[in-house]
Amino acid sequence: MADLFPSELAVINLGLPAFGQDIARQGAAVSSPEWRPPAGGDPATVAALTRMLAWPEAKRQRVAEANREAGKRLVAAQPVAVAVGRALDLVPGMTRKHVLHAGPPLTWERMCGPVRGAVIGGLLFEGLAKTREEAEKLAASGEITFDPCHHHQAVGPMAGIVTASMPVWEIENRAFGNKAYCTLNEGLGKVLRYGAFSQEVIDRLAWMRDELGPALQAAMKSHGPLDMRTLIAQALQMGDEGHNRNRAATSLVIRALGPHLVESDLPKAVVAKVLRFIDGNDHFFLNLSMPSSKAATDAIADIPWSTLIATQARNGTDFGIRLAGLPGRWFTGPATMVDGLYLPGFKAEDAAPDIGDSVITETAGIGGFAMAAAPAIVRFVGGSASDALRFTQQMYEITETENSAYAIPALDFRGTPTGIDVRKVVEKGILPVVNTGIAHKEPGIGMVGAGLVKPPVSAYRNALQAFVETYADK
Amino acid sequence: MADLFPSELAVINLGLPAFGQDIARQGAAVSSPEWRPPAGGDPATVAALTRMLAWPEAKRQRVAEANREAGKRLVAAQPVAVAVGRALDLVPGMTRKHVLHAGPPLTWERMCGPVRGAVIGGLLFEGLAKTREEAEKLAASGEITFDPCHHHQAVGPMAGIVTASMPVWEIENRAFGNKAYCTLNEGLGKVLRYGAFSQEVIDRLAWMRDELGPALQAAMKSHGPLDMRTLIAQALQMGDEGHNRNRAATSLVIRALGPHLVESDLPKAVVAKVLRFIDGNDHFFLNLSMPSSKAATDAIADIPWSTLIATQARNGTDFGIRLAGLPGRWFTGPATMVDGLYLPGFKAEDAAPDIGDSVITETAGIGGFAMAAAPAIVRFVGGSASDALRFTQQMYEITETENSAYAIPALDFRGTPTGIDVRKVVEKGILPVVNTGIAHKEPGIGMVGAGLVKPPVSAYRNALQAFVETYADK
Repeated sequence: MADLFPSELAVINLGLPAFGQDIARQGAAVSSPEWRPPAGGDPATVAALTRMLAWPEAKRQRVAEANREAGKRLVAAQPVAVAVGRALDLVPGMTRKHVLHAGPPLTWERMCGPVRGAVIGGLLFEGLAKTREEAEKLAASGEITFDPCHHHQAVGPMAGIVTASMPVWEIENRAFGNKAYCTLNEGLGKVLRYGAFSQEVIDRLAWMRDELGPALQAAMKSHGPLDMRTLIAQALQMGDEGHNRNRAATSLVIRALGPHLVESDLPKAVVAKVLRFIDGNDHFFLNLSMPSSKAATDAIADIPWSTLIATQARNGTDFGIRLAGLPGRWFTGPATMVDGLYLPGFKAEDAAPDIGDSVITETAGIGGFAMAAAPAIVRFVGGSASDALRFTQQMYEITETENSAYAIPALDFRGTPTGIDVRKVVEKGILPVVNTGIAHKEPGIGMVGAGLVKPPVSAYRNALQAFVETYADK
Repeated sequence: MADLFPSELAVINLGLPAFGQDIARQGAAVSSPEWRPPAGGDPATVAALTRMLAWPEAKRQRVAEANREAGKRLVAAQPVAVAVGRALDLVPGMTRKHVLHAGPPLTWERMCGPVRGAVIGGLLFEGLAKTREEAEKLAASGEITFDPCHHHQAVGPMAGIVTASMPVWEIENRAFGNKAYCTLNEGLGKVLRYGAFSQEVIDRLAWMRDELGPALQAAMKSHGPLDMRTLIAQALQMGDEGHNRNRAATSLVIRALGPHLVESDLPKAVVAKVLRFIDGNDHFFLNLSMPSSKAATDAIADIPWSTLIATQARNGTDFGIRLAGLPGRWFTGPATMVDGLYLPGFKAEDAAPDIGDSVITETAGIGGFAMAAAPAIVRFVGGSASDALRFTQQMYEITETENSAYAIPALDFRGTPTGIDVRKVVEKGILPVVNTGIAHKEPGIGMVGAGLVKPPVSAYRNALQAFVETYADK
């Protein structure tokens, strides 16, 4: 090579890796920048990004300002648990004929196995049907209104089924006054949210309605508001990330409410059973983490010009997002499969596609975005501790801001990456990291595993294109 | 330089860093190995190490085998909490005239401020004296037997005072049948173990004797043995390290005992008060972590030929260690000052020297040795999250083995460094990392801060020299 190039050679290789390797083998310095075409080279998306770049400076400033405002609101959120009560009494617009489900809107015909199973369970639980067959007939009859939880200020994990008699947590975002709702967590194994509807499942729901709900209602009344922001912040220092690892936060709820349960008028057998039920279920806090995240993100549900994502949710058929700047519009892509670890006796072929409203945690800046705080979660969802660190670090690339209230010890107390900017997702081709449980694809079976999932890029591209079109002439 | 050295130069610099810097400035490659003379160049210690190296192979093998055995026993330890009861009833050799204290043996005359304060408080609490003056007179009279906790199968945090009526935890090492004891944790602020003895302190001790102790006794009877190994393992996945961060483990104890407290015959006001007391004190588990560590390390208290450290403890005057191969002998150096963070209103001049039996946690392979599991602890003891990681990694240099039961998520579930080898400490000049609370130097005041402390190297050097002398002719 010295014959060809008399002076010392320093090469930047933009071609195939093999080109650079050949040069390196000759002893020259080679740098290979990691470059990928924007938006994966997708012509329609590149065109949309290009149009935005060509907007006048003033217009681009409006987007930047709107995103700053949205980021500020997410960080300023003060979710506080204020009560427990019946869905019929608390959830706006709820009736006895409503069945709320996770994700974007969905008809009975398009529902996947676990959502159908959970709908059947919900109708049996409410006494609207006596058998599986009756429930399926009723569900298909048009007499039942199927609505997304998200259209009723609510969220639901996995199938996310909410019916009238279920007890729900009420969360208030004290910074903005809006409220959010979520059912109580049933535990793992055969549970409604994973599509199981056997008598055991229905009996547990009845106990939750008759004893657990009223007990928590009494404890909350005695305790007063329970600050979710402080509690989540503490849990992030204790190895939780607020989506699939909630052991610490569940412990802190037990610590906070325990004395009030004891002092209530409830029989001690009920108090002990309630404490054992919560202790037996480290995911108990998920159903507080989710409405806390919903209460935070609903404060950016309508911010004109903002490209931040206000909602992400899946119903097992579609994955959908909503943008702060395009209120009320869902942009969807097909729900994808989860890459994860399976419970003994199950395998990838048994899995339903990605499902549930729990991705609201990532949308608010915790969950997969805070995995660096929860390295032990990789034992549940797969991967190594360094993956957990890397996932969080990568999410700073696609977010507007950092939430200093949610400090990650392992990153020297850096705040969690917060406020997903759909432009950055689409341009950089970096999809939000989501960790999640996996449901069996057939109704009636339940949980089969947990893992990580890549949402469909089409939902984000469609949203960006719609944004560019909507604001093109404004 | 090209004139002096015609071929390319690669330099290993063993001299002053400046030599290497000069060469690097000329453009040549310089490597500066981090070399320090063994044992810091201390002649007597180097002589002892050299003598050991000259021992016949068979003799050196006996040391290696003894250390392997000691390491195995530490890892095999199965500490289980079995009961709560009065010190007088449970602690071997305890009488109404005994006052146990932390660290190596110590007379009243040599006691530092906080230990004197705690002794005064203990005598007031037992009704053996009515005023501070009476207590001081009694303590100096020779009528009271001052013994190290460690001589009674016990450990005590900070001053470590144990008197007859105090309730204690009983821990059994199920793998070896030995038992260990520790009082219940009083909380932070003005507490006996930090040398405070005001009426508030004595009243709390009386409540602990009359209500808290019996309540925990009842809960433990109903619950049955509580597996400390499993609980500590879980806490290490939740950001605890078992010495100065015990928030997760305290939560898990509340979760385990809560239902049993509720089901007991105790009035609900007492149950609620007990739950609130534990919830109000994230250090509550320290007094379970310590005797669990003591139960583990006592299984290596007498292993001929082993250079592993079986005990480390401080009384505020001396820092002392005992070796597995030299049972019953204390090797001491002067207690050192703690480098830490101070509570508002206090500063380094207020601090007493390093004190307490809590360094038994590091001796068993948790505490400072597990700081990589607890990055949030740096907010309490100072430093950065990367320090926490580095401390644990460095401790692998001076330990015999790793405890796979205590997996550190951030190190991809590597076991904690376990079994401190006094040879490695002395030869490499790497002292065990200890994190600790800081007491005010005057009696009666209490806690002023927390931080990290370097034990005196002389204790380790003396122990090694005694080991070499003892085994020279065997």
